[in-house]
Amino acid sequence: MSEYRFLSRGELLGLHAKLKEQLAEFCKTGLSLDMSRGKPGGEQLNTSDLLLDALNSKSVKTSENGFDVRNYGLLDGIPECKALFSDLIGVPEENIIVCGNSSLNLMFDYISQCMTHGTGGCEPWMKQSGVKFACPAPGYDRHFKVLEYFGIDMINIPMTPAGPDMDILTEVVKDSSVKGMFCVPKYSNPQGFTFSDETVERIAAMKPAAKDFRVIWDNAYIVHEFYGEGDRLCEIFERCKAHGSEDMVIEVVSSSKMTYPGAGVSAIAASKANLNEIKKRLSIQTIGHDKVNQLRHVLFFKNTGGIRSHMKIQAEHLRPRFALVIDKFEKNLSGKGIAAWTNPKGGYFINLVVPDGCAARVVGLCREAGVTLTEAGAAFPYGDDPTDSNIRIAPSCPPLGELSSAMDILCACVELASVEKLLSI
Amino acid sequence: MSEYRFLSRGELLGLHAKLKEQLAEFCKTGLSLDMSRGKPGGEQLNTSDLLLDALNSKSVKTSENGFDVRNYGLLDGIPECKALFSDLIGVPEENIIVCGNSSLNLMFDYISQCMTHGTGGCEPWMKQSGVKFACPAPGYDRHFKVLEYFGIDMINIPMTPAGPDMDILTEVVKDSSVKGMFCVPKYSNPQGFTFSDETVERIAAMKPAAKDFRVIWDNAYIVHEFYGEGDRLCEIFERCKAHGSEDMVIEVVSSSKMTYPGAGVSAIAASKANLNEIKKRLSIQTIGHDKVNQLRHVLFFKNTGGIRSHMKIQAEHLRPRFALVIDKFEKNLSGKGIAAWTNPKGGYFINLVVPDGCAARVVGLCREAGVTLTEAGAAFPYGDDPTDSNIRIAPSCPPLGELSSAMDILCACVELASVEKLLSI
Repeated sequence: MSEYRFLSRGELLGLHAKLKEQLAEFCKTGLSLDMSRGKPGGEQLNTSDLLLDALNSKSVKTSENGFDVRNYGLLDGIPECKALFSDLIGVPEENIIVCGNSSLNLMFDYISQCMTHGTGGCEPWMKQSGVKFACPAPGYDRHFKVLEYFGIDMINIPMTPAGPDMDILTEVVKDSSVKGMFCVPKYSNPQGFTFSDETVERIAAMKPAAKDFRVIWDNAYIVHEFYGEGDRLCEIFERCKAHGSEDMVIEVVSSSKMTYPGAGVSAIAASKANLNEIKKRLSIQTIGHDKVNQLRHVLFFKNTGGIRSHMKIQAEHLRPRFALVIDKFEKNLSGKGIAAWTNPKGGYFINLVVPDGCAARVVGLCREAGVTLTEAGAAFPYGDDPTDSNIRIAPSCPPLGELSSAMDILCACVELASVEKLLSI
Repeated sequence: MSEYRFLSRGELLGLHAKLKEQLAEFCKTGLSLDMSRGKPGGEQLNTSDLLLDALNSKSVKTSENGFDVRNYGLLDGIPECKALFSDLIGVPEENIIVCGNSSLNLMFDYISQCMTHGTGGCEPWMKQSGVKFACPAPGYDRHFKVLEYFGIDMINIPMTPAGPDMDILTEVVKDSSVKGMFCVPKYSNPQGFTFSDETVERIAAMKPAAKDFRVIWDNAYIVHEFYGEGDRLCEIFERCKAHGSEDMVIEVVSSSKMTYPGAGVSAIAASKANLNEIKKRLSIQTIGHDKVNQLRHVLFFKNTGGIRSHMKIQAEHLRPRFALVIDKFEKNLSGKGIAAWTNPKGGYFINLVVPDGCAARVVGLCREAGVTLTEAGAAFPYGDDPTDSNIRIAPSCPPLGELSSAMDILCACVELASVEKLLSI
């Protein structure tokens, strides 16, 4: 099979007609599938259902320090849940706060706190003008939405398989109005890239001009491997210690994609100075998070060994879905010079790169055929993919049969959009 | 018994010596009791333990609209939980968002939202200068702490048994920099007062100069009666409708003091315009609250009838505690001209008024004798009780025996502080 750019106009027209016909056939099947978000499927959720039995009316309802988890208090979480996250992340318990069901909420609230109260003794960001964030892109759309909501300007930083382009990032942070960066350092959303040791080291060693520069280290897929050990991510705080930059990083994790996305437990890891600022706010914002659910999770997981075993069961559900997508791409798109894709060893996403200017068209064609993908451009600040070429694939939810059909449709749409482009030149 | 102010210096000195001796005896018992917060006791919490069995691994885990409660989504809560709160509060379901475990969190986040984004089309409060709140006082200390955290100036509004002094409030809101008011309209914290129909009507009819004036209607004790029907509070939104002022009110409720303080469900009731602003923020802040816990609560309560029955069981625990406090006050303090107290029919608090300048002394004397009360002044903006005469009593938590000893100590401390004051004149 030769690359499509070498085909004659006649060959392209023939291909175009064939693909249109193929898509019309697909449309007849009446598939209606939403693949827009990275959420677990029903069977995967079932694997966590014993969580609901971990705590019942007969259970002991006190934490190991004798605190009644049903009552008010323990702002920073029950000690055994702190210990669990401490062990999982690899930071001391005193650097952990265990919170509610959403790490996104933790990140939003942290940015909000910086807007109204500032950090590191600096002016609130709302009182500083032209506050900006460095944004490795493509990245997690909800990070960008938080920044957009608060009117923080976003600067695209190209992503490489080793993480953000560190030469560019290092330059960008020389501007003191650049106040931070969101990132997903392991199995990045949407590529599934894991930051290399060198990248982590260079981030920890950064000397941003802004004293109140903060890296929001969204370690969403910290134990979310498909195969055995998976990618190894260097723990950022260990590197920060070497550079005295612990105050630069706010790390968040959650069990949303270990147990239930709607009813998990989240945690913040941060330096003492940052935790003090966060606790000062939290002590006004709430009397405590849901400690019953924290205890429920500890009883369910027992320890990090329990988490890792549980994640192996989750992987059974995810691995075949990712394998199917990669297999379809290999079979239908490789060698045609019209697509590239990532092949992650964990996480929830695959990034598909189509010819420049084709991503929105592919997503539109898929929608017409009954397959809803993440909106083209969503993985970029302001929803604007400068080359309109990236498509986020979220294979976790659909049943395998439907996913297979969806991938056939997607591949046909990628082909069609690419041929359309070649014909239009 | 004559009032202490009519006693001779000699009589006062004799009383002083006797009270000192009495307190020294109390101190010997080694009581150590924390009555500083209004939290339920262990036995009261036990009455809600079947909540933990309401949902287990075998349960149906979909909401009535077919949504898997374990997964992401349903930002405004599951419909059956919305219906429950709708029926409880008496506002339509479309005016409800069901959230996480803390209504304090909802209020904090709402104020934060007004700080960064404003409301009603007006400038963010952080961009306006000298933003103020009217503060009925004594009131709930955590409300004042939220305002203090955001640097919002607080103006004391005297409280009457019918609610805030409406003549003063009506004057104060003529200043366009006054942006709102927190209040607990039923069984107010700390008095246990319920706003009269006239007060509710006058609040709904207010025409504050600020277009972005908001009343945070913290209906924390909406069904928290000790005796039968309890106080009747006019539903604010019904009155607002008559005056076209629905956008002026944000109501919050929670099940913190129905089931578990740490693991309940909270809800906001607001106008469509306000809910749109809130949802716009929430859609960036989280992907959804804990819907598993929402479903758990619906299965536990079933309906508002179930809530009311459950609250009758809770009342069995609270009623004798409140009766004991009132009884001790009657027996030990009445007729002496040194104290007045409220006698609420529901809620979590009693307000004790001692002679001017004596509250901090009483709290200090109690602490020395092993009884920790809410800090004197806490129920006022900036922790400053202008007359140093109010003490919040939170009888809900201690076992009856300990509460009885604590009240003996408190009464002796009130007497001693009052005698000290009379001797110092």
